[in-house]
Amino acid sequence: MSESNFPQFAHLKVAALAGGVGGAKLVFGLDRVLPPGNLTAIVNTGDDFTHFGLRICPDLDSVMYSLAGLSNKSYGWGLEGETWNVADALEAIGAPTWFQLGDRDLATHLERTRLLGLGKSLREVVADFSTRWGIASRVLPMSDDDAPTLIETKKGVILPFQDYLVREKAQPEVSRILLHGGFEPVPLPDALLAVQEADLVLIAPSNPWVSIDPILALGGLRAALKEKIVVAVSPIIQGKAIKGPAAKMFAELGIEPSSLAVMNHYADLLDLFVYDASEKACSPFNIPNGIETVQMQTIMTDEADKIQLASAILEYFINQVKAK
Amino acid sequence: MSESNFPQFAHLKVAALAGGVGGAKLVFGLDRVLPPGNLTAIVNTGDDFTHFGLRICPDLDSVMYSLAGLSNKSYGWGLEGETWNVADALEAIGAPTWFQLGDRDLATHLERTRLLGLGKSLREVVADFSTRWGIASRVLPMSDDDAPTLIETKKGVILPFQDYLVREKAQPEVSRILLHGGFEPVPLPDALLAVQEADLVLIAPSNPWVSIDPILALGGLRAALKEKIVVAVSPIIQGKAIKGPAAKMFAELGIEPSSLAVMNHYADLLDLFVYDASEKACSPFNIPNGIETVQMQTIMTDEADKIQLASAILEYFINQVKAK
Repeated sequence: MSESNFPQFAHLKVAALAGGVGGAKLVFGLDRVLPPGNLTAIVNTGDDFTHFGLRICPDLDSVMYSLAGLSNKSYGWGLEGETWNVADALEAIGAPTWFQLGDRDLATHLERTRLLGLGKSLREVVADFSTRWGIASRVLPMSDDDAPTLIETKKGVILPFQDYLVREKAQPEVSRILLHGGFEPVPLPDALLAVQEADLVLIAPSNPWVSIDPILALGGLRAALKEKIVVAVSPIIQGKAIKGPAAKMFAELGIEPSSLAVMNHYADLLDLFVYDASEKACSPFNIPNGIETVQMQTIMTDEADKIQLASAILEYFINQVKAK
Repeated sequence: MSESNFPQFAHLKVAALAGGVGGAKLVFGLDRVLPPGNLTAIVNTGDDFTHFGLRICPDLDSVMYSLAGLSNKSYGWGLEGETWNVADALEAIGAPTWFQLGDRDLATHLERTRLLGLGKSLREVVADFSTRWGIASRVLPMSDDDAPTLIETKKGVILPFQDYLVREKAQPEVSRILLHGGFEPVPLPDALLAVQEADLVLIAPSNPWVSIDPILALGGLRAALKEKIVVAVSPIIQGKAIKGPAAKMFAELGIEPSSLAVMNHYADLLDLFVYDASEKACSPFNIPNGIETVQMQTIMTDEADKIQLASAILEYFINQVKAK
């Protein structure tokens, strides 16, 4: 589809930094407008955790399910046509059910855990799944190493990310975000290379604090980005996040949640900032030097929206940024 | 039910050594005729293995599902009313499906793996499940330690037991059985104590080589049994096993499969040997000194058969063996 419909993007190499839901949506759009192999999605693994002995990688799964066309169309996570027999059985024996495990989703976790147990790296496992699911773009975990995001609450409790987000429903007030949980993960060499080779690096509309920062905090990543043209898409619209606790986190960390706050968060890296068409335009006095801004329809409800936003960003890049 | 229906067994303490299917059936019968807590089932863990990162204990599950009244009524393993959504999804992504994982059964494996991951011992996990399922008898793993049974084939290949039994469908010819797989498992202290405190130790009609021998090979077990009255029930009828490769193993190890062969296998431990009523009676010349034999209806098709065999053995013990 891509080469015939979007010939203008045929030679464009894009690296996208992405978390889960919002990231998966824009990555889907990019995948559909770029030629096979021209997109590399570098995905946050800070949310990954082990549950019931299974290795679970929420953001990688969201991105892969999305690219494979398997995503659930209503939830924003998980698989379409999912069933819940194991979850019901877990509930029946009194096992914890705060993290929803669909039957088909479980097959992914089981097979990933099996392959990791055979000594394969996460990168190899993701490549294996990508092949099985016929994914044309390249999906990379940000690192093969453990890099758990921990949330320190204002009560002084430190929670693994899924415990905070899902079990505690993101209710506790956040005082600090501890990236990489005391580990020293090395960025995936292919991820660094994909950034270096990209014409454009796109920061997807994911949570800046817990989806994108874990990637940016990897050694060498920020330095590599500073050499590139970098575009970010705001996940905050009218002071609220489409999904997830991004706006709540900004507020609890003492920053009024807004597109402007997102832009400032990434300011030292950005060439172009995309925020929603429905917002009042940022005052030019608030925009740091060297950053161009543009408003677009950024809410992605269906596949057409995702493709539309991806192509609009790439068009803007070709015609307005690269042309300079 | 037990105390009113079987007052003659009210003060009887029984320890049963059991493997999977046949063992689970007789243990069910014993559980239903003995007062709560008077039966201790000591269960083989030589079949246990890790699959997809989950700890799977086939014999313990067969025994617990049986006692909880959850067993599948046709297969002889697994759960009644099982569904296969995860298995279908595993097949769809090309994951190995040789070991059948039902959805409800998976909940057991997930919860067990979770509890073991919290640092609980297998014994504690089994006790926990027994409570959740309202099991009145005591179910004990033979050991908390790893004790994998390995099968050496005549081609010189060494296979973990489930790979031999399920993946290879017990087709390879067996040259040697390696109990405990190089580990040195310690018997569960409570299991040794249950044997010591038992009025009667019953060796269930399980595979002698791979279900009972792993228990008997634990340090101190044989010595404890020699102090007790021990009854074995033959799993071989008319030269064939009701289920599983017991007869095939006898033949491949150079012994004609028969009830007599089973009796000889346990000869140094036995006081009483029970074999099927349909068989030609063993010649008294073939029966080792000190072993009494009795023929009973040993095929257990429904619950009534299981209760009937259990009560017949206990009656015989009280009236013919203990009375002497």
